[in-house]
Amino acid sequence: MDVSDLVARARDGQPRAVARLISMVENGSPLLREITARLCAGRPYRARVIGLTGSPGVGKSTSTGMLVRAFRERGRKVGVLAVDPSSPFTGGALLGDRVRMQDHATDPGVFIRSMASRGHLGGLSWAAPQALRVLDAAGCEVILVETVGVGQAEVEIASLADTTVVLLAPGMGDGVQVAKAGILEIADVFVVNKADRDGAQAVIRELRTMTALVERVWRPPIVPTVAYRGEGAAEVVGALDEHLAHLERSGELGRRRHARARDEIEAIALTALRSRFAHLHGDQRLDALATRVLDADLDPYRAADELLAALG
Amino acid sequence: MDVSDLVARARDGQPRAVARLISMVENGSPLLREITARLCAGRPYRARVIGLTGSPGVGKSTSTGMLVRAFRERGRKVGVLAVDPSSPFTGGALLGDRVRMQDHATDPGVFIRSMASRGHLGGLSWAAPQALRVLDAAGCEVILVETVGVGQAEVEIASLADTTVVLLAPGMGDGVQVAKAGILEIADVFVVNKADRDGAQAVIRELRTMTALVERVWRPPIVPTVAYRGEGAAEVVGALDEHLAHLERSGELGRRRHARARDEIEAIALTALRSRFAHLHGDQRLDALATRVLDADLDPYRAADELLAALG
Repeated sequence: MDVSDLVARARDGQPRAVARLISMVENGSPLLREITARLCAGRPYRARVIGLTGSPGVGKSTSTGMLVRAFRERGRKVGVLAVDPSSPFTGGALLGDRVRMQDHATDPGVFIRSMASRGHLGGLSWAAPQALRVLDAAGCEVILVETVGVGQAEVEIASLADTTVVLLAPGMGDGVQVAKAGILEIADVFVVNKADRDGAQAVIRELRTMTALVERVWRPPIVPTVAYRGEGAAEVVGALDEHLAHLERSGELGRRRHARARDEIEAIALTALRSRFAHLHGDQRLDALATRVLDADLDPYRAADELLAALG
Repeated sequence: MDVSDLVARARDGQPRAVARLISMVENGSPLLREITARLCAGRPYRARVIGLTGSPGVGKSTSTGMLVRAFRERGRKVGVLAVDPSSPFTGGALLGDRVRMQDHATDPGVFIRSMASRGHLGGLSWAAPQALRVLDAAGCEVILVETVGVGQAEVEIASLADTTVVLLAPGMGDGVQVAKAGILEIADVFVVNKADRDGAQAVIRELRTMTALVERVWRPPIVPTVAYRGEGAAEVVGALDEHLAHLERSGELGRRRHARARDEIEAIALTALRSRFAHLHGDQRLDALATRVLDADLDPYRAADELLAALG
């Protein structure tokens, strides 16, 4: 099937075409350029992107499932992109979580895809924008991007999403951990899941204290949930809608999306340059430079100069 | 003080010179190039790098402290680089953990520095090699790099370290989480901390099952510890030494360090290209391209072409 057919079918909402395009994007298909061109042609991107992140064990997948249900009840077409740092090695373990998503497996208004974040230059930043574009083309009005972890992945998700939800749960480590993970800065909405368990109130109190210390126009609301029972779904959706309204009022939505487009262009340009490196030098040239650096015959800056010199 | 003085003092083991150089490296000092050149001049890098990673709450800092003590008892000069995803915003919370490190604060054979992993292009990959070089120049024979988190940060630490230690602890989430974090692939040694708590045996059993499934020349040993009491320190050091011996025997040590040098050269070259972008185009050009992409007037690949065209 050629790309224009595939894109037409994805626009028509055919799940297999959507799945295939996302796989092509993820695997860095040589057709990526053409796919992107066709996805973009004459049709501005529209879908709202909500990032969900948190440590392993807080109930991200269950919460994502709850939100899918809530948005479906409100008549929205929903995409889910689960970005997982698992390697091919451990990818199988994912299934345990994805099982809960099978509630939605037969709903034509829901597209669910897992993507690995490893092995690609720049992690998420490289393939995810194209995957969002595929889901947008398929008519998704809301896209939930779920990612594990603290640190880099969280920062990346925040730069991809219009609204970033940070999930916490009681019993995941003491209070200092919340601060340590550096999440205050990226959270637009806090969800404290497993709110029926001991310690949930303490987590909420601590978050309240912390968010009160931060001077920002938008103070992230803190929403308790019990995701496996669907408790708190309406409140989370309410908080998300309020944040979207805030983004629109303040002009921040446009700024975030503009910054995202900049990042994407730059990432593509850098990837192109990187492959130009590979062509110019092959592995041997860089190998030889690395050996000289290890032998203290050359410092890495001068080695980089030599690498760049051939680019002109 | 000029760079050659500062490097001379660092080589002499003066902590303030070491601290100052690492700060300069971390902040992307304009003198970075000269610093690196002087650090590299005529002296191959020697220090052994051990990465420690794991989720928040497993006891990374305590374990790092235990290993510092163990290596000091064996007469080694030790460097610690704590790479934290915290932002300036939340950086203060770090102090809670670092307190335990103060045992070593007055030992001239130990250098401890925290680095933020945010805000730099490529995270760890950019500044950490230079920071390792500073610690190596100061005579550190062992450098412990401690990092929070799962996902990208872990992959990065594995590419920096000769040996990667993955820390786990009971009660941090169910078994599937171990697989999910994608850690099997990067772990050279597993340490199960808090081994005196309920559930430690289950974590060890699960790890055993998982590592048995993997076909690799080196099967990661699993070492139980109770870090705050120093229990298991000798066993961890033993496992680390065995792994180092394996790396040397198999030639893998040379390969890892060569790959690291390649990565470093490439990262510097890409950073240079990126700043060349900034010079050529300024923000305005990229802004205009981003706007056109948002308006669906241009796809991001063609925008990247335009950005690159001016580079020639």
